[in-house]
Amino acid sequence: MLNTLDLDRSLDKATYKIQIEELMRQLRSLQQACWEKKLTFVVVLEGWAAAGKGGLLKKMVNYMDPRGFSVYPTLPPTLEEQKYPFLWRFWQQLPPHGSIGIFYHSWYGHLLEDRLFDRVEAVKVPQAMATINAFERQLSDDGVAIAKFFLHLGRKELKKRLKKASKDELTAWRVRPEDWLQVDHYKEYRALAEEMLLHTSTGVAPWILVESNCKYWARIKVLSQLVAVLTEALDRAAIAQPEIPAQPQEKLLPTEPDYLAKVDLSLSLERDDYKKRLRKAQIKLQKLQLKIHQQKIPIVLLFEGWDAAGKGGAIKRLTDSLDPRSYKVNTYAAPTDEEQKYHYLWRFWRKLPEAGKFGIFDRSWYGRVLVERVEGLAKPREWRRAYREINEFELQLISDGCVVVKFWLHLSQEEQLQRFEERKENPFKEYKLTEEDWRNREKWNLYEVAVNHAIARTSTPAAPWTIVPGNDKHYARVFVLETVIEAIEAKLKRH
Amino acid sequence: MLNTLDLDRSLDKATYKIQIEELMRQLRSLQQACWEKKLTFVVVLEGWAAAGKGGLLKKMVNYMDPRGFSVYPTLPPTLEEQKYPFLWRFWQQLPPHGSIGIFYHSWYGHLLEDRLFDRVEAVKVPQAMATINAFERQLSDDGVAIAKFFLHLGRKELKKRLKKASKDELTAWRVRPEDWLQVDHYKEYRALAEEMLLHTSTGVAPWILVESNCKYWARIKVLSQLVAVLTEALDRAAIAQPEIPAQPQEKLLPTEPDYLAKVDLSLSLERDDYKKRLRKAQIKLQKLQLKIHQQKIPIVLLFEGWDAAGKGGAIKRLTDSLDPRSYKVNTYAAPTDEEQKYHYLWRFWRKLPEAGKFGIFDRSWYGRVLVERVEGLAKPREWRRAYREINEFELQLISDGCVVVKFWLHLSQEEQLQRFEERKENPFKEYKLTEEDWRNREKWNLYEVAVNHAIARTSTPAAPWTIVPGNDKHYARVFVLETVIEAIEAKLKRH
Repeated sequence: MLNTLDLDRSLDKATYKIQIEELMRQLRSLQQACWEKKLTFVVVLEGWAAAGKGGLLKKMVNYMDPRGFSVYPTLPPTLEEQKYPFLWRFWQQLPPHGSIGIFYHSWYGHLLEDRLFDRVEAVKVPQAMATINAFERQLSDDGVAIAKFFLHLGRKELKKRLKKASKDELTAWRVRPEDWLQVDHYKEYRALAEEMLLHTSTGVAPWILVESNCKYWARIKVLSQLVAVLTEALDRAAIAQPEIPAQPQEKLLPTEPDYLAKVDLSLSLERDDYKKRLRKAQIKLQKLQLKIHQQKIPIVLLFEGWDAAGKGGAIKRLTDSLDPRSYKVNTYAAPTDEEQKYHYLWRFWRKLPEAGKFGIFDRSWYGRVLVERVEGLAKPREWRRAYREINEFELQLISDGCVVVKFWLHLSQEEQLQRFEERKENPFKEYKLTEEDWRNREKWNLYEVAVNHAIARTSTPAAPWTIVPGNDKHYARVFVLETVIEAIEAKLKRH
Repeated sequence: MLNTLDLDRSLDKATYKIQIEELMRQLRSLQQACWEKKLTFVVVLEGWAAAGKGGLLKKMVNYMDPRGFSVYPTLPPTLEEQKYPFLWRFWQQLPPHGSIGIFYHSWYGHLLEDRLFDRVEAVKVPQAMATINAFERQLSDDGVAIAKFFLHLGRKELKKRLKKASKDELTAWRVRPEDWLQVDHYKEYRALAEEMLLHTSTGVAPWILVESNCKYWARIKVLSQLVAVLTEALDRAAIAQPEIPAQPQEKLLPTEPDYLAKVDLSLSLERDDYKKRLRKAQIKLQKLQLKIHQQKIPIVLLFEGWDAAGKGGAIKRLTDSLDPRSYKVNTYAAPTDEEQKYHYLWRFWRKLPEAGKFGIFDRSWYGRVLVERVEGLAKPREWRRAYREINEFELQLISDGCVVVKFWLHLSQEEQLQRFEERKENPFKEYKLTEEDWRNREKWNLYEVAVNHAIARTSTPAAPWTIVPGNDKHYARVFVLETVIEAIEAKLKRH
């Protein structure tokens, strides 16, 4: 692909000057349109060292309002960043709705430099490509426009430019020793780049190849492509998408399995048994925590369930035996206004546990297909595609070595009513009961369908759901602890 | 101080068991009170290695709801963190209103381990102490309760515990080589600790010394002090503070200098002159940027000014000549709901530039004493103390090596009116003009007083204000650029 490119395309300076001026103006007004239409735009700049990315970048933003874009220079991941899945740091840097984020080098470093310098195992490359494709599709589905450029240079030209840059004091500091390796390993690097271009050129985010031996030509090509992509994205955004009719589903279809109905809610534990098994499990977990720490395994435990099903109590029994420095409990309610400016997964990515720690999620990304679905806070189109996004997200965690355990705390409608009544009476628990709890209760059927759908569609071999019989609190708490222990032990065995 | 402590205070296990249970219960209900009253609580745990901080921590949070507190284990700063003032990373980790943040080791590491291992110059220690005291006072003024514990051990006991911990596989991994240095340099470390305790024990955040040779004694002491501090803070929060009467000031007092009136608004630049000087300044700035990068100097440029005074245009001319990877423009409007859960300086700390880069602030922390004062969004008590907080904040930036340049873009009321009218006519600029601009214009006098007050109280030798004559845009833009250049050159000379 790269060697068939006609690298010698060129442009004379006079034509360039006229065209570039016009393109910069167009970009300026497109930027304003992005702002007004709340269109988010992500630009990726990749390519050979000294291919002219810096100068190009300046032309790109030259007429733009500096308040509406951000530039993210990507360096090799720091030690801190290496404690998370490789996309983690890019999620943190995504531009909010209505603005432009330009990545000067990007997540593709994982498929280029990281491979060249053996920072990624060959066997993991296909998975990394799939991960990147999923990431870009998720953004695109969320309304983000994406343009990706690969600036290509011939070997001779590359060498000439590096030599020249090294001689000039204004640019010499930018030439890294790694850049010279690109000259030495030109063919190898080119093969990696070709493979990357081939496997990550998708419909929503195709690569644009830029012949860069002539910098004028390269700049005009990139800027005019930017104008094209943005114009098209704005046009597309202006067409209202037809919404799928949103008939609330009150009952499961005969073909849909009712996972909740299968749970034996009569299961219970005597107080003595409870104490004994709880104690045993807590001691075990304490020891496992040490191993988790030593082997740098991240653990994600997420809790969903009916109101008053005992999430808080179960989490408490779990954290009781953990070192307080080893876990964080993240509670989620409706997204804040800042969080609403990003993809709905953004606020969960931010709180992932680092390697060796526990991240406990009290409510989670499943809100999208549960409360947001039932309450109409997400459009049918949005929550329907969320199943796939969630599966992809969890798969990314798991392939990064994470243990993911997902609990649905189940209880009967009668038991819930009784607990609500108790809370009403008890001044210490009254604060836990809100108007919303009563309202949610009226929608029991809708939630039941949504929960069953979620379990059916997101219970994957690597991240299965565990439904906790919650009518008896003792039973539920021990069950949760023992399930966590089992999952960790299984992971340690494989590790 | 530390050697006069009677380290051999002890407690028998039976008494301990009864008391600790009761204290943990009390902490649980105090935590709930914090949540309800939106009281923020910061706990600092410092002390010798193996002094029992870990076990203590577990008791502290044992009965608490894990959703209402966070634990921050503090390690030596990463390379990334070293690019910012030393308090930067702690600002990021402050607990939001209503919750509890426990720092296991803290900003005091800068006065203990950093000194022991020569990571901080002796000459900078007094400044660091003043910085910490200011930080804690700022939090306290914002309604945050603070408790700081220093767990003290005798040298013999320290050695014994480290030996014991090293032998047990469950604890051995926690003993760091540095911990043994505490034994070897016991006296030196103790002297540093004493100095720290002496100089950072303030009225709002006194140190509590904990004799820790007996762990039962230590835990009871810490927990009962926590109960005492929290109870008192909640009592204090319940008493409504008398508000200073808030008579809006329409005119400066005869004794108050009118800085704005002194500005010569007739200053202007011919188009040719403008182009020449702009070009010259931009080239110069480009060269300076390289030096800034090489010498790792952070630059903060902040822009305040009347609506339509030309902030955007001035920022644009500045960024035009910079490498887009070297700066970020941060725009501020009303705080988001997330930002409102923290001290008002929090959202600015988050966006400070790292060493070697430009942080450009389009509106800034001066909002507190300008728009928030005039519009009544901050209480008189709050904006009055903000002058001092701002001076302290900027001093911290400057002593970290930062260049701080502050611009007020000034123009006459007539010129503003004319620009508003132009914007109304021009479809490309119309979006810039809002209802709010007209409303602000009616409050010109109030703003004039507020701006003069701000300039008088926050124009410090290290971070002076620059008032930009803005009736002529050409003049203003060149003036801004040349001022920035001057400030950077002055810094490089001193560097």
